[in-house]
Amino acid sequence: MSIRPSRFRPFELAGLPSVAEAQRIWADALPKVTPEIEHVDLWACCGRVLGEDVRAAAPVPAFPRSVVDGVALRAADTDEARDDRPVSLTLVGKVAMGRQAPAVLEPGQAMLVPTGGMIPPGADAVVMVEEFPELLGSRADMPAAVAVRRAAAPGENVIPVGADVKAGEKVMEAGVRLRPPHLGVLAGLGCVTVPVYKKPEVAILSTGEELVAPEEVPAPGQIRDMNGVGLAAFIEEGGGRVKRLGIARDDRRVLREALEAGLASDMVVLSGGSSVGEEDWVARIVAELGEPGIIVHGVKLAPGKPTLLALIGNKPVLGMPGNPVSALVVYRLFGAMALRRISGERDHPGWIPVVKARLAHDVTGPKGRELHMRVQLLPGEDGWIAQPIIGGSHQLMTMVKADGIIVVPPDTKLPAGTAVNVRVW
Amino acid sequence: MSIRPSRFRPFELAGLPSVAEAQRIWADALPKVTPEIEHVDLWACCGRVLGEDVRAAAPVPAFPRSVVDGVALRAADTDEARDDRPVSLTLVGKVAMGRQAPAVLEPGQAMLVPTGGMIPPGADAVVMVEEFPELLGSRADMPAAVAVRRAAAPGENVIPVGADVKAGEKVMEAGVRLRPPHLGVLAGLGCVTVPVYKKPEVAILSTGEELVAPEEVPAPGQIRDMNGVGLAAFIEEGGGRVKRLGIARDDRRVLREALEAGLASDMVVLSGGSSVGEEDWVARIVAELGEPGIIVHGVKLAPGKPTLLALIGNKPVLGMPGNPVSALVVYRLFGAMALRRISGERDHPGWIPVVKARLAHDVTGPKGRELHMRVQLLPGEDGWIAQPIIGGSHQLMTMVKADGIIVVPPDTKLPAGTAVNVRVW
Repeated sequence: MSIRPSRFRPFELAGLPSVAEAQRIWADALPKVTPEIEHVDLWACCGRVLGEDVRAAAPVPAFPRSVVDGVALRAADTDEARDDRPVSLTLVGKVAMGRQAPAVLEPGQAMLVPTGGMIPPGADAVVMVEEFPELLGSRADMPAAVAVRRAAAPGENVIPVGADVKAGEKVMEAGVRLRPPHLGVLAGLGCVTVPVYKKPEVAILSTGEELVAPEEVPAPGQIRDMNGVGLAAFIEEGGGRVKRLGIARDDRRVLREALEAGLASDMVVLSGGSSVGEEDWVARIVAELGEPGIIVHGVKLAPGKPTLLALIGNKPVLGMPGNPVSALVVYRLFGAMALRRISGERDHPGWIPVVKARLAHDVTGPKGRELHMRVQLLPGEDGWIAQPIIGGSHQLMTMVKADGIIVVPPDTKLPAGTAVNVRVW
Repeated sequence: MSIRPSRFRPFELAGLPSVAEAQRIWADALPKVTPEIEHVDLWACCGRVLGEDVRAAAPVPAFPRSVVDGVALRAADTDEARDDRPVSLTLVGKVAMGRQAPAVLEPGQAMLVPTGGMIPPGADAVVMVEEFPELLGSRADMPAAVAVRRAAAPGENVIPVGADVKAGEKVMEAGVRLRPPHLGVLAGLGCVTVPVYKKPEVAILSTGEELVAPEEVPAPGQIRDMNGVGLAAFIEEGGGRVKRLGIARDDRRVLREALEAGLASDMVVLSGGSSVGEEDWVARIVAELGEPGIIVHGVKLAPGKPTLLALIGNKPVLGMPGNPVSALVVYRLFGAMALRRISGERDHPGWIPVVKARLAHDVTGPKGRELHMRVQLLPGEDGWIAQPIIGGSHQLMTMVKADGIIVVPPDTKLPAGTAVNVRVW
């Protein structure tokens, strides 16, 4: 009976990249891809990546609009107007919202116009209604004239045609991830069928002799796979389609076949079992599958030291420990970036929203590795408190309690009260 | 021709609540509801709200597990072990991952066990493999014995049965919003069909004489509705189903019929047109529709002063300005909170993730109102720069550029370089 002593060799920390170094190496190695385009209904494309530049077919606004409720007039008529020498203009009507102005404004005339209403032809300025006491009273009838008490500037309170966007102007660039404001803009332009990149497909594979599917009843020595479903949720939130490859035994031939099947997708995410040495199998098989192969193997990260980052052709392959917390941490650090890239998203600037909090008690980073520690967020007297979660990363209960992750630098003690940034789940 | 002078009355700032006050009033008024339950496949329930407490059917772990690669032994056998007087134990085999231990461990015996592997009956401790030089060499055969060089503690490196969760113990509570770690835990428990609250339905209505649907070609004086699709995206991201009520003319009877139709849903979100006085119509009609009626009308907020918060029975009704940026700002401040409540989510602690940045230039908050200002995030030498977006909130191009929102207090100047929190879209 062989115990394969080499598989027991501890993973050496020396020479491994830090998290930041590994992320930079990975970002540099990831391919720039341009996925195929499909056309999706505007109401269904939040979170999708725009596949073509969008240009305005017509100018915006398409007619001159008022930015206030007021009185449209010809500025030249008011040149001599002063508070003590008002100029009287004949009020010839009002512009109805959503309608063309009822008439051309002649010299000496004025017309009421609502915010967003069309400026009547001939008019070139709008004076706010608040400047006309005669319009603010309780009388039900429109006065015959208004008194202007100052000189209006040409263009005052008027948005001219095309002020926002000129006809043919580029409004949005291919590669942008569409969020609600983008959808509003596309609606405003009448772009109701949107060219977006097809969602990349990500294959998820769990390995481990001890694993059974969540719907199965484990025999003694077995446990249910906890990783697939959490990774699938992150991938779908990130705009990917999930291909479930299930569980592969920790056997060279089985693993190789499963990985080859995974390469039919655009990316492969593989969480190892906790069996001894599975990272060695995965690494050896990945190295055999094609160029450029392994980019990073091992990161100064806890949990997640055995992280494997590889490319087979232009397909990212991400290997991570089987521990459920490690898998989620490693996916967010390295998998999300790869998914963005193969989605055709133009380079994201890289900001990550966080909740600011203060540490509830001292925390010490482990030797040589950056600790990504789970915390619970609790309300404090003066902001949020980050309560570190006590307990091994294998524990179910600790996963339910944690609201997010903080980063503790290697070999560093952060005293209670330290300001930390919590990246929530 | 009537100009309805009362509709021109400026909205008085005095007496309006601040944003924080309005949020507190709204939170206090919102009903606690318990939606109906439906059963959803585990792989499809990220973001859903758990509808029943989840208890463990079996203890976790269901068998004693090792937390390290090591040597399982009986701690009592090692009581006398010292570095200079090692105790020799007979190595009787190894535990295979995912299998029952092959034998009961007798006194004087030891067995190899992998991380996560089952502790053999009789053993009560595991000593890490790194403590055994004889297991780390290059020999292919398992040695006949191992030398233990210190006393192992009973329970060392062993996770006993039920250490994480006892059989019948409550693991998750009804009302929690399920995120990827929760899904992992449900998978671990074999909970593959999950009881979740049904998604609430939110009716979206746009009003304004000037509005046409995005797929229509506007006539002179008309513009396309930009609000519906952006609001729909936020509502769907927040776990709601959207009912599209389209565009209602700014007419008392039409509006009333549309609002009554909206009350067939669980919540109504209404963005006014930019026509003069539409907030008055909406408020009067909402006040007629039922109790308790209007909770807040007007907030010291820019943009979003005419915000209307109401309840008809236990159905939230949210009225907001027609301006596309206002609508998104107001929805996130007040609509998202209402949606969480009617989703059955137990009270969310209220943290909001933000990106820390420094202001690129001076910004001044308007008189009496809290400014929610759009900014673009740019990389700086020492973190992120928040570049305020210049231009009216009606402008399409500014919506495309903005990455998120910062809050500027009323009547306050924030100088360039001030640290700000950006809430990204």
